[in-house]
Amino acid sequence: MQFHHHGYVSGDPKVEPAAGVGIDRPEDLPDEVDVLIVGTGPAGMVTAAQLAQFPNVTTRVIDRRGGRLEIGQADGIQARSVETFQAFDFAAELTAEAYWITEMNFWKPDDEDPSRIVRSGRAVDDETGNISEFPHLIVNQARVLDHFAQFMANSPARMKPDFGYELRSLEVADEGDHPVTVQLAGTAGDNEGQQRTIRAKYVLGGDGARSKVRESIGCTMAGNQANHAWGVMDVLANTDFPDIRTKCAIQSGSGGSILLIPREGGYLFRMYVDLGEVDADNKRAIRSTTIDEIIAHANAIIHPYSLDVRSVAWHSVYEVGHRLTDRFDDVLPEDIGTRTPRVFIAGDACHTHSAKAGQGMNVSIQDAFNLGWKLGHVLDGRAPESLLSTYSAERQVVAKDLIDFDKEWSTMMAMKPEEFDDPSELEDFYVRTAEFPAGFMTEYAPSMLTAGPTHQDLATGFPIGKRFKSATAVRVCDTNPKHIGHQARADGRWRIYVFADEPAAGAPSRAADFAEWLDTSAESPLAATPSDADRDAWFDVKVVYQQDHTNVDINAVPTVFKPQVGPFQLTNLEKVYGALPDDDIFDARGLSRDGAVVVVRPDQYVAHVLPLTATDELAAFFAPILQSRPAVGQAAGSTPS
Amino acid sequence: MQFHHHGYVSGDPKVEPAAGVGIDRPEDLPDEVDVLIVGTGPAGMVTAAQLAQFPNVTTRVIDRRGGRLEIGQADGIQARSVETFQAFDFAAELTAEAYWITEMNFWKPDDEDPSRIVRSGRAVDDETGNISEFPHLIVNQARVLDHFAQFMANSPARMKPDFGYELRSLEVADEGDHPVTVQLAGTAGDNEGQQRTIRAKYVLGGDGARSKVRESIGCTMAGNQANHAWGVMDVLANTDFPDIRTKCAIQSGSGGSILLIPREGGYLFRMYVDLGEVDADNKRAIRSTTIDEIIAHANAIIHPYSLDVRSVAWHSVYEVGHRLTDRFDDVLPEDIGTRTPRVFIAGDACHTHSAKAGQGMNVSIQDAFNLGWKLGHVLDGRAPESLLSTYSAERQVVAKDLIDFDKEWSTMMAMKPEEFDDPSELEDFYVRTAEFPAGFMTEYAPSMLTAGPTHQDLATGFPIGKRFKSATAVRVCDTNPKHIGHQARADGRWRIYVFADEPAAGAPSRAADFAEWLDTSAESPLAATPSDADRDAWFDVKVVYQQDHTNVDINAVPTVFKPQVGPFQLTNLEKVYGALPDDDIFDARGLSRDGAVVVVRPDQYVAHVLPLTATDELAAFFAPILQSRPAVGQAAGSTPS
Repeated sequence: MQFHHHGYVSGDPKVEPAAGVGIDRPEDLPDEVDVLIVGTGPAGMVTAAQLAQFPNVTTRVIDRRGGRLEIGQADGIQARSVETFQAFDFAAELTAEAYWITEMNFWKPDDEDPSRIVRSGRAVDDETGNISEFPHLIVNQARVLDHFAQFMANSPARMKPDFGYELRSLEVADEGDHPVTVQLAGTAGDNEGQQRTIRAKYVLGGDGARSKVRESIGCTMAGNQANHAWGVMDVLANTDFPDIRTKCAIQSGSGGSILLIPREGGYLFRMYVDLGEVDADNKRAIRSTTIDEIIAHANAIIHPYSLDVRSVAWHSVYEVGHRLTDRFDDVLPEDIGTRTPRVFIAGDACHTHSAKAGQGMNVSIQDAFNLGWKLGHVLDGRAPESLLSTYSAERQVVAKDLIDFDKEWSTMMAMKPEEFDDPSELEDFYVRTAEFPAGFMTEYAPSMLTAGPTHQDLATGFPIGKRFKSATAVRVCDTNPKHIGHQARADGRWRIYVFADEPAAGAPSRAADFAEWLDTSAESPLAATPSDADRDAWFDVKVVYQQDHTNVDINAVPTVFKPQVGPFQLTNLEKVYGALPDDDIFDARGLSRDGAVVVVRPDQYVAHVLPLTATDELAAFFAPILQSRPAVGQAAGSTPS
Repeated sequence: MQFHHHGYVSGDPKVEPAAGVGIDRPEDLPDEVDVLIVGTGPAGMVTAAQLAQFPNVTTRVIDRRGGRLEIGQADGIQARSVETFQAFDFAAELTAEAYWITEMNFWKPDDEDPSRIVRSGRAVDDETGNISEFPHLIVNQARVLDHFAQFMANSPARMKPDFGYELRSLEVADEGDHPVTVQLAGTAGDNEGQQRTIRAKYVLGGDGARSKVRESIGCTMAGNQANHAWGVMDVLANTDFPDIRTKCAIQSGSGGSILLIPREGGYLFRMYVDLGEVDADNKRAIRSTTIDEIIAHANAIIHPYSLDVRSVAWHSVYEVGHRLTDRFDDVLPEDIGTRTPRVFIAGDACHTHSAKAGQGMNVSIQDAFNLGWKLGHVLDGRAPESLLSTYSAERQVVAKDLIDFDKEWSTMMAMKPEEFDDPSELEDFYVRTAEFPAGFMTEYAPSMLTAGPTHQDLATGFPIGKRFKSATAVRVCDTNPKHIGHQARADGRWRIYVFADEPAAGAPSRAADFAEWLDTSAESPLAATPSDADRDAWFDVKVVYQQDHTNVDINAVPTVFKPQVGPFQLTNLEKVYGALPDDDIFDARGLSRDGAVVVVRPDQYVAHVLPLTATDELAAFFAPILQSRPAVGQAAGSTPS
């Protein structure tokens, strides 16, 4: 965390200086905004939190609720989400209050007495730690949203949601500076009964499975109808079931099954209880299942154990459906390439599926992390509008993969024990596919943002199109071993990691030549950075030498790796790393000893891998991504006036 | 972190339920309080934070300042303090914002050209990790105080400081329920000009080196006068000195020296700059040294490098003195044993020394952590007043050791290079004595709170009288590997760790017999717990089995290790541990395979080690510590009504 460089900070350093001098940030929702976000769920809040780092973009986020979410349905937090929380400054806090899944247990009917369940297996979650250095957590969605709200409030744009408005209609004009017109109705507090017309440059619908925004842009959801019902309950109970605080898949001889998810705080747990096939002619019957009936089902399934429920925090009945839209924006297939999108949808508005793979909130967060910086770059004048077309292209595929995965998992969860070929089939599937639900299987296809694999062999551990998997190196200036990926905040910046060739800092080398080009060439992407902004305002450039930190002479390191920043033009020394002798990042990530350049997007995905000599290729990659026109206002991270 | 067991918590779980129904907690400072704390420095705030866990004790903390501290002098955070912050719920947050010392570098004059300094050595801070699992940090005192204030505000007593009052006088009467009378004067805000008379049961003076409370109880400070002056500055600067972000001791050929302490945030650093001997006849001259002169001295010392200071956050000139009081309370030596104390002093009010060993704030925190629970237990009716006599007895010795250590360190820091016998003498001293400044050398002598070493061989890794050094075990219920010591919050409870003998849970064993006695015997310390409080309200009892978690049958574990708590009487399953096969706590802490009982005080010091059969000895140990009369009100941790 860097601070004090704009002057001494006495209070919480997570509260960044407010920025955007001269920008109107009215208390009440204004009539014109740059971005209007509908819905304060994960998709809406993450996009808003990201845009809060762009203080010259006016972003507002509305919700029909009158205030913060009190209790949400989602609770599964995959490691990729925790990695994302790290970028939004709250991974440590959330981890401290969450339930941490280290093992999943499987229960099945006892062969000798199928009326009784017995433990059939234990699977360790990410046993080798190969998937991620972040944990797999369970915590209520409401708390995740609280943390994103805090990040927004701490950000330079000082944003907070406008509660108590719902969308009534949305229209997109063919032209104009604010072509999207939305009609809102007040739903709570002082807003109640109000009718508002808001004009926006862009609108995001994060308004859930029944999205009005989706409907307005003519998207439809396609997929199968639900035919299996589940009761879900968050309860406080005493029990003799010995694994009550461990995630369990429980299959009973009577045919029912339970997915048990222990919750944060040491006592609460969630059960997804199998209610069986839905009678298509009488759906109402199953939907009116009471909490007492759900508890009775649960008790039958876990026999010979039993539950004594003392308090019910929440419960619901739902049917599993898998549905998906074919596009995540308002550009019809026939218009692709001729116009760029003005309206987007994200999260449940695009994809619905069962809750039991614990994916919904996580995929929504990544939808938003993908979109947020793109809106920020376009509105900040850094990038052309064509950047926005990549959102639907990239995320629709991810949603389709999710639906396919979830169909398989939830079908297996609903199968009777005798339907499995092998008793350990469910457990094997869980272990074999662990990288998917952890959130790390996403691999973006080549596009304007994702290069082809030409130079992938220079950095085999940083697959192009996948998220940058952090590794450790030693920060030279303070000798701290650091995960270099964890130094990447969600600040909207591109990152260029320069892995040096063999010569030490100060000696002639390809790394030194590359640094010189990056610093001084008119073709360098850094040349696009506004002259009144900090040198590292748009691109965060770090170098990792092959030497250990005691053999890196900080004074000999090229200046592009030690930018001078802020009103005092202080030298930032924290971008220079040496390899850890015991855990060499060059070995850990398959990096060429001839060096490599790894380009990482603001949402942490690897965009390109290049040789240190490929300056033309790097310039060509960034040319269509960078807008040549000057910034419309003050850039994020720039020097406040 | 445990929550939800009193019903679903939607918001921040660190905010505990407010408690103390029927207790008057007026907004304004009342005329009568249980404890009045003078000063919101580390000593005062930690004591207040601890007492905030005792909602039936009325504690108020005053300060002559009108609000929170903006910038403080102390910044060194030893590992023991971070361990303490863990108990107060904020170690992770503070670590994230602090500077982390991993290495200390030493610079001395170049043999060939003594006008130039060269790096002579690097010392890794706690290289093996043997001293502590917590880091050695640098962060401003103001932020530490903010976090303690937050803990107070989140605690059941919902406390906040009363700013804008200073102490004018203090008198202790021989009798009465509130025998201490203090006169306060308003100093800021609405209080200005007010005169108040407050009557208290106890008063703590955490009012600094010129303590009025100390003066009121007739304590004097003895020690040597300062004769060496230092300039200290917190600055933002650019420099070619390569180790500017690493802690350094720099000795120049010209005779001056610098202690360089990098500060949090990546840019700010502190320098203690040697200003030489103080001319006793002209102290004013050195005290009026300007910031420009300090910078000039610094530049001369670091030649051939130089500093370009861009902003000065703070600076001061001070002379090193080492002074100590002979007692930390108002009981004269001749009255010891005939009366118990009513007034205490802590922190700088008791001991002053140089800042450069980074000890002041840390020792003050431990003074307060020692005293806080004792006041809480006496006022809560758990313990007799004699407990309070142990504070001065225990802490005065620690302060004396500190003064001795600091004299040695600061003398060496002020020595000229040619005065050392060996050029690496300073570096050797730093490495050799590392456990002391890390805060772990404190070892309380036998007393009513600290048993003798009779059974120490049963748990050689938990030395009696020293702080409980955490180790890892697996929590059985959720299969989470945990540092068992980190589960100990600063909640004022005694902890009894039962390390089981060889039989597994459920089999006849000494551990099972001990558990039965603890649960049911009238002689058990647990029998003192009020019947209307949770079973674990006064004693947190945990068990660690020798088996790994897959071989501990949670249903066979004795009930004393699975208390039922809260309004729903839910079973707390989080007190049962198994050994980690790869890092067996029995081996790591030298625990007997015949089992052992380790008793740990609320301030984390080991009070006793006993065999599992020594029930009489355990009962005898607690007899003088536990008050037989009933609690005066609602106990901390009890069931709210």
